[in-house]
Amino acid sequence: MDSGETGRADQGGGGVMVFPADKPLQLDSGGRIDGLEVAYKTYGTLNADRSNAILICHALSLDQYAASSHPVTGRRAWWRTMVGPGLPMDPERHFIICSNVVGGCMGTTGPSSINPATGAAWGLAFPVITIADMVRAQAMLVETLGIERLFAVVGGSMGGMQVLQWAADYPQRLFAAVCIAAAARHSAQNIAFHEVGRQAIMADPDWRGGDYAAVGVRPEKGLAVARMAAHITYLSEPALHRKFGRELQSDGLSWGFDADFQVESYLRHQGASFVDRFDANSYLYITRAMDYFDLAAGRGGVLADVFRPARDVRFCVFSFTSDWLYPTVESRSIVRALNAAGARASFVEIDSDKGHDAFLLDEPVLLSALGGFMASAAQAAGLADQAAP
Amino acid sequence: MDSGETGRADQGGGGVMVFPADKPLQLDSGGRIDGLEVAYKTYGTLNADRSNAILICHALSLDQYAASSHPVTGRRAWWRTMVGPGLPMDPERHFIICSNVVGGCMGTTGPSSINPATGAAWGLAFPVITIADMVRAQAMLVETLGIERLFAVVGGSMGGMQVLQWAADYPQRLFAAVCIAAAARHSAQNIAFHEVGRQAIMADPDWRGGDYAAVGVRPEKGLAVARMAAHITYLSEPALHRKFGRELQSDGLSWGFDADFQVESYLRHQGASFVDRFDANSYLYITRAMDYFDLAAGRGGVLADVFRPARDVRFCVFSFTSDWLYPTVESRSIVRALNAAGARASFVEIDSDKGHDAFLLDEPVLLSALGGFMASAAQAAGLADQAAP
Repeated sequence: MDSGETGRADQGGGGVMVFPADKPLQLDSGGRIDGLEVAYKTYGTLNADRSNAILICHALSLDQYAASSHPVTGRRAWWRTMVGPGLPMDPERHFIICSNVVGGCMGTTGPSSINPATGAAWGLAFPVITIADMVRAQAMLVETLGIERLFAVVGGSMGGMQVLQWAADYPQRLFAAVCIAAAARHSAQNIAFHEVGRQAIMADPDWRGGDYAAVGVRPEKGLAVARMAAHITYLSEPALHRKFGRELQSDGLSWGFDADFQVESYLRHQGASFVDRFDANSYLYITRAMDYFDLAAGRGGVLADVFRPARDVRFCVFSFTSDWLYPTVESRSIVRALNAAGARASFVEIDSDKGHDAFLLDEPVLLSALGGFMASAAQAAGLADQAAP
Repeated sequence: MDSGETGRADQGGGGVMVFPADKPLQLDSGGRIDGLEVAYKTYGTLNADRSNAILICHALSLDQYAASSHPVTGRRAWWRTMVGPGLPMDPERHFIICSNVVGGCMGTTGPSSINPATGAAWGLAFPVITIADMVRAQAMLVETLGIERLFAVVGGSMGGMQVLQWAADYPQRLFAAVCIAAAARHSAQNIAFHEVGRQAIMADPDWRGGDYAAVGVRPEKGLAVARMAAHITYLSEPALHRKFGRELQSDGLSWGFDADFQVESYLRHQGASFVDRFDANSYLYITRAMDYFDLAAGRGGVLADVFRPARDVRFCVFSFTSDWLYPTVESRSIVRALNAAGARASFVEIDSDKGHDAFLLDEPVLLSALGGFMASAAQAAGLADQAAP
């Protein structure tokens, strides 16, 4: 596959759902967002009994363009390995929805949106949001699209957290749930890495207390450093070694502070390209939502109690052996709680040296196991017998 | 032990060794440093046959104050767990030397020193230095102190790299070598984390291309972010979890970007206190030296060939199970090469959940194993029979 394919790909449907003032988004903080806008993409067609809908939840730095190219950067669909004809999420069989999270910067209301009270970007006046707030907005979207019950909710990383939150908050509104490379709560190390990123952004004088939009600047250097630090956590040490080792950019050492090593140049590129497509305040808000995530916290710390109302949902949980950001032990504790709650839970630990980002990459075992789970769930849901819509 | 102890501790001897112009430090880069100054501390007394000297090599962010309190910060001796009466390195039996590395900021010539050609701080005009350059300066110091052969060279982390470099470059000038929590070369992940730190510093407008001293500012925010990112790598995930978990600073969430979690507050403190005692350009130069470190690179990539001339040196190599910065696999490859070279090598992997920083902490197994190794080496060197000097 090459970038030439982008032009031929199905760009899907969707748009921006604007909710009326009498349907505000109620927030965990106690605040609310009036006039919520949710930007979303759809792929495929909803069947007659509205039973073939899949919601894909995206990760921290991603967006609604799971199966079509990014309109700003031209980047190919971020989940092209899993969404497409013949793949586990198939627009020829499913109606696939992917929406930008609340707090994001790709069209859904977030800190770079205009605050109606001031006519300027929200900046830090935007309320702090949670994973549950993101899911509540998705539920409003799904309901407005006329879907009472999703066939499946699927996501990796922060997307997986949203999947768990869906199961906790709307167990009657989903048939199956797929949680990949995630955790039921953010660890101290996870919080620590995010805090480094936030400090890097807030240390940039162009951040201007969050009001950079008003003066037409952006904290690009700080955001790039945040992305670089985070990016290391997405890869495994073996993957970094395999990709770069100690290979130099040119014939010899520079004896200076240029990017001597290929890994340095790669990281700098990751930082520089990220600032073209992401908003620094969104980065603050979304990492904060992840840090606040602790699904069992409000329920006495017992995760099984959270999942008990979801015992009729079919779960599939995936982890990767080399993922040190959300290691297998986190997935195991999710599965243990699901079992304790009496839910149907499959668990697949995939042997991969690609680290956390494996869920976005070409991983044959993920492809076949997710495909198998989705086919079996479709059978159980009575979807498999139906003709294509 | 409490800080009250500091006042009673032996503050040792030492000073600044100034090398004459006709004794420049020759650098790996091809350059040289004229009028090199090396700041050092000594503890204990050199015996009559000058055979009881131990050189301690310090890690990235440390200094010569291994066994006495830091004159600027008042911090207690950084290796008080290993250096002191009755400890493996004992001023009552050994003459212990610890010098600030070239490129450092505690008295040895580095980028914050005055460039005689301009009368201003070197800044980025300072030559890029290597671990071998650091060791060459130490060898000049040791020679000037009248010591032909060290009883032992001991160090952890970057100090361990210097120990390996000593064995490679001056095998006849040491009897024993102790390398703790280190590697024979910097990995892609190691380089990546350092590059994030450097980018954070260089992104700070107060860095001013390295010339911040001329205008009386310091890139404090950038250096703090660099330190925060690095600090995460010094701790293990279990240690972070045990110390902080998801504990909050106060009763509830702030719903903002203050330090809600104790781990955030801890990291911010680590960053803020570091800038009081460390120079940002030194951080750039020393991390660069570590990234350039690849002991076997100049010798066809065969580490055993590096160690062959050192086969009469007694080595002891330590690693910690939870050290993910310099994991056990790195120490194993050092030991394998030492064995292949026919050197005497002990290897101790210590079961600890404290991560990389374990070498600085109270680790009973490190204490007893290092004590045993030093005692056995002293016996072999004929030191044990001598009365205290």
